[in-house]
Amino acid sequence: MKFATRLNNIETSAIRELFKLLGKPGIISFAGGFPDSAMFDVDGIREATNTALTVDPGAALQYGATEGYQPLREQLSSFMAAKGANDVAPEQLIVTTGSQQALDLLGKTMISPGDKVIVEGPTFLATIQCFRLYGAELISAPVDAHGVNTDTLEQLIAEHKPKLVYLIPTFGNPSGALLSLERRKRVLELAVKYQTLVVEDDPYGDLFFGEAPPPSMLALSAQVPGSRDWLAHCGSLSKVLSPGLRVGWMIAPPELLARATMCKQFSDAHTSTFAQATAAQYLKAGRMPATLAHVRQVYAERAQAMGSALRQHLGEAIDFVQPQGGLFFWARLTGAKGKIADGAEFAKRAIEQGVAFVPGVPFYAANPDRSTLRLSFATADVARIEEGVARLAKAL
Amino acid sequence: MKFATRLNNIETSAIRELFKLLGKPGIISFAGGFPDSAMFDVDGIREATNTALTVDPGAALQYGATEGYQPLREQLSSFMAAKGANDVAPEQLIVTTGSQQALDLLGKTMISPGDKVIVEGPTFLATIQCFRLYGAELISAPVDAHGVNTDTLEQLIAEHKPKLVYLIPTFGNPSGALLSLERRKRVLELAVKYQTLVVEDDPYGDLFFGEAPPPSMLALSAQVPGSRDWLAHCGSLSKVLSPGLRVGWMIAPPELLARATMCKQFSDAHTSTFAQATAAQYLKAGRMPATLAHVRQVYAERAQAMGSALRQHLGEAIDFVQPQGGLFFWARLTGAKGKIADGAEFAKRAIEQGVAFVPGVPFYAANPDRSTLRLSFATADVARIEEGVARLAKAL
Repeated sequence: MKFATRLNNIETSAIRELFKLLGKPGIISFAGGFPDSAMFDVDGIREATNTALTVDPGAALQYGATEGYQPLREQLSSFMAAKGANDVAPEQLIVTTGSQQALDLLGKTMISPGDKVIVEGPTFLATIQCFRLYGAELISAPVDAHGVNTDTLEQLIAEHKPKLVYLIPTFGNPSGALLSLERRKRVLELAVKYQTLVVEDDPYGDLFFGEAPPPSMLALSAQVPGSRDWLAHCGSLSKVLSPGLRVGWMIAPPELLARATMCKQFSDAHTSTFAQATAAQYLKAGRMPATLAHVRQVYAERAQAMGSALRQHLGEAIDFVQPQGGLFFWARLTGAKGKIADGAEFAKRAIEQGVAFVPGVPFYAANPDRSTLRLSFATADVARIEEGVARLAKAL
Repeated sequence: MKFATRLNNIETSAIRELFKLLGKPGIISFAGGFPDSAMFDVDGIREATNTALTVDPGAALQYGATEGYQPLREQLSSFMAAKGANDVAPEQLIVTTGSQQALDLLGKTMISPGDKVIVEGPTFLATIQCFRLYGAELISAPVDAHGVNTDTLEQLIAEHKPKLVYLIPTFGNPSGALLSLERRKRVLELAVKYQTLVVEDDPYGDLFFGEAPPPSMLALSAQVPGSRDWLAHCGSLSKVLSPGLRVGWMIAPPELLARATMCKQFSDAHTSTFAQATAAQYLKAGRMPATLAHVRQVYAERAQAMGSALRQHLGEAIDFVQPQGGLFFWARLTGAKGKIADGAEFAKRAIEQGVAFVPGVPFYAANPDRSTLRLSFATADVARIEEGVARLAKAL
């Protein structure tokens, strides 16, 4: 069988091979990018579904508008307002099948084969693959603890004239980095100056441990004239409520939103109204603030535990910035005292010791730093985190 | 903003404009392609969800395998077996976000810009648009009451060497046609002879009114050596249980299924596990046979009522074959006695009389027959069908 040429643009994920090993009994996993199932508010979701099936079962089970189930769009508009973006009307967002679909729709709507796209180095693996399937040529912009380097970003935009710039400004995956307020404004100014679409992917922004992060670029766009015309914002309930609902959303300028909606019509018609009506009732019931407070507290403890254990057990062999939110540590092997400095090699030895993580290489669209690795603290409790890090030390 | 060039391949649906008028009070609609909400088994679905959230809430609310939720794949394997395709292992199907997504994944996996694809004339509108977004050049094969004309189909395959042939063999949308047993086997032989992928889209096959239709091409493929290697089959719960769940599936040769799964990973990661677990519990509970019996009976009555009313009120001004299943009448205006012979003109006048349907033109990828129209009998009850057809007569 002869397949479409676009499939030549990507390769099967190296991570997939690693994930097959996770089934081994006794493995402690720092590898996943998912939240802890034990924290799902099952009662709240059950109640929301039952309400949805009682209040308007016809709508919850029938075909719906491609743009999204209107009561959910209204709830999401309020949810965004509570987070500082208080001028997003329900009509300015569409519901997507997880924020992964928002990325797919951006690719389908924006990217012609050969178009350039700037992403962070490192960035979300599925974004790299998603955009490459549409023929994008990816350019990698370097990231430090304060997010993407905006001076380099400007040079890259000027040089490559990209179709879009994709960023995860708040607790990035895998970088854990937090883009500073100053840099956020600078990115918005660059969007206007170069008339370049900037995509703010924000699945982790609600998962902060101490003080709240700077406002989203969406919220800040009100302060940078013209920037809203060049900004798309992707949100998701996956990391804070439940990934299984597959409820995400995208806020974008009207002409982009209209085209993304048209593409969505032929991608999956609409996101499950059953899941959308459930999410709408959940938000309406007012349970989200307590749910957020709970997950923030648990993840904060786990992040704290992982940071302490890494410092204690791995010492100067590893270098990292303690994350202020999200689900990940992004670390670099220093090679100190002749220890391993290659993330992939370390991952292999770690599996033998019964602990898994993802080496950093696949997260780079170009010029990977082989010494890097991503550790998720989301799914193991504090005791397992300490045990897992002790095993890492043995592997090293 | 500059969008992807692929958007130039399609135009906004003419149907969309029509659908905006459906909100007018008092309109009787024969326009929709959706089932009647009043027939949804709400209690059964509520019970299924509650069971799913009790038995394994972690799995129902967490990320899941891109291929689909394993208990659902197992239930769908049994469901297919009960319909005569008794050799489909759970691993030979993937769950899709409605069968619309199966079409999208086929497009993404198979179609390079400029590739040719053969579809029926007329065919499902969203298929036309979906494939065109991937750059397909569509070739239209004529359909009669017994489905696609296989002699012409062979000529077209030989001439155009298409990437795939897309058919809705059982109660087609919009044709209502039923591909005969003999032609089904012939299509499978053509797939083997020309080594051409045939896609059997089958959302309506369960909705038969009298005796069951011929076995699906999937079931028949066992009788045509080699044909299974060139056959993809798309199924859906949308028309028989609930479109709002967005649960469909695709059965395909392993190398195609693997690539479609990879593409799905970057399209929406996976279909809502919440909806999948609900569907799995629904099927497991054994409610489907009664649900199918119910919807078949109601739609059979409505189809009967519409056929009688059309003959009585429109007489020789309209020509159609009484459908043996599905949701649609496909009719042709004869122009007898100087009556209107243009479907679009008739649709406008019908709206003025308070009844809506879809003219046939948009359903053709090429060479539309302007005298055609599609009437759905799914959502109006018998009294409304009779009143609606009487209004059609007035409009004519």
